[in-house]
Amino acid sequence: MTRVYVPDVQVETLVVEVVGDEAHHLTRVLRVRAGDSVGVFDGRGREWRTQVGAITKSSVSLIVEREVSPVPEPAVRVTLAVGLLKGDQMDAVVRDATVMGVTAIRPVVTDHVAVPSKTWRDNRGQARWHRVAVAAAKQCGRAVVPTIAPVTPLVGLWPTADAPDAANLTLACVEPAAMQGGTARDWRTAARPSAALLLIGPEGGWSGEELAMFTERGAHTVSLGPRTLRAESAPAVALTLLWAAWGWT
Amino acid sequence: MTRVYVPDVQVETLVVEVVGDEAHHLTRVLRVRAGDSVGVFDGRGREWRTQVGAITKSSVSLIVEREVSPVPEPAVRVTLAVGLLKGDQMDAVVRDATVMGVTAIRPVVTDHVAVPSKTWRDNRGQARWHRVAVAAAKQCGRAVVPTIAPVTPLVGLWPTADAPDAANLTLACVEPAAMQGGTARDWRTAARPSAALLLIGPEGGWSGEELAMFTERGAHTVSLGPRTLRAESAPAVALTLLWAAWGWT
Repeated sequence: MTRVYVPDVQVETLVVEVVGDEAHHLTRVLRVRAGDSVGVFDGRGREWRTQVGAITKSSVSLIVEREVSPVPEPAVRVTLAVGLLKGDQMDAVVRDATVMGVTAIRPVVTDHVAVPSKTWRDNRGQARWHRVAVAAAKQCGRAVVPTIAPVTPLVGLWPTADAPDAANLTLACVEPAAMQGGTARDWRTAARPSAALLLIGPEGGWSGEELAMFTERGAHTVSLGPRTLRAESAPAVALTLLWAAWGWT
Repeated sequence: MTRVYVPDVQVETLVVEVVGDEAHHLTRVLRVRAGDSVGVFDGRGREWRTQVGAITKSSVSLIVEREVSPVPEPAVRVTLAVGLLKGDQMDAVVRDATVMGVTAIRPVVTDHVAVPSKTWRDNRGQARWHRVAVAAAKQCGRAVVPTIAPVTPLVGLWPTADAPDAANLTLACVEPAAMQGGTARDWRTAARPSAALLLIGPEGGWSGEELAMFTERGAHTVSLGPRTLRAESAPAVALTLLWAAWGWT
């Protein structure tokens, strides 16, 4: 079924007017016609079945038939904090993380981030990554579009007195060698939380200081096995491990 | 560490002569110099630490120092049978499946395969996919390169009287809707086998006939969750589920 993202849809609405890029996509790419069924989702977890009404050059009217049950969300709200990768890798991470059910994505600058600061300094990635997340949500059937936070330094992830963090479990994905330290706490010993912060490093992994900070802040560690994954594959593998333990929904 | 694939390396050898593409890669791309450490693996699970000796225009001599313990292989030998996808997606599947530890890859033609037959009829993909698997093995640290079988029809996967199949558990990844049938056997009810055949459909999923055949042949089904994955992401997710249950090694 064709699905369209309308973030400002009103619940009491009977007709949804789609304009701009989404209208263009519906008429020119997906070539919908009057009478076709189209799903409308608001990106925050609600979805409606609609039927295409009038089509003009710049807009499509969708007549709401009924609200439908969206694809279920995971029971645990996971925020993925990921060390910045280069453009296409970062797009792949946002796409896969969306399909794999994360609630939010926080791109972070870490000691081993190798992409030049001019590519992220003005947060130009944020709008692009949002578009990638919207496209992924459409395709995978989710009615939720993960929020994309502005790029922040790694330490900015932790709560301050003013802004306590919602995550009650912090999980750091580490490479096999970094698991050797006796202080690492395996994530599987932790009970299922209601929310979790999942940390995945950039291409070059974590620095010693960062690993020490994770221990100090009570993070649990997640091993992704003995083989070295590509950085952009790590989120899907890590999230699969979490859902295998906590359930997909 | 730089790693090089030498499939015909002799165990008793003291010096490995690398020629051809691998030599070119070592000298022109990785720019090794005399005295550098290089790992040599045979693609069948053995690995040696060597030191670069003489470098000529077309060859590199590697002086064997000692055999080393390779990255451990999974306890369960998994053959991935995957419905043909288009070129770059298929490359991604071969790369991810290699990194995720499969023993063999069998590209199959299924009812919903959408790539034109001229792209696979003469098996021209086989050599290319082997190169992708070698590159992935080098990067992920494995000393095993999965074998790539010629393209076969789906039914060719099952053993005949002449050629009994080594796999003692068949697992079919199915989309959420296909799980509804009461006859599906969940893979998690099966004991850990020594070998398994993991079936992943093409972009369009399985046909009704194929699903019926899986049931008839005693396959267990693997659900990859309620959200629709991209076809090329499914192998990494499915393999992660298997290793989460059976162990990474």
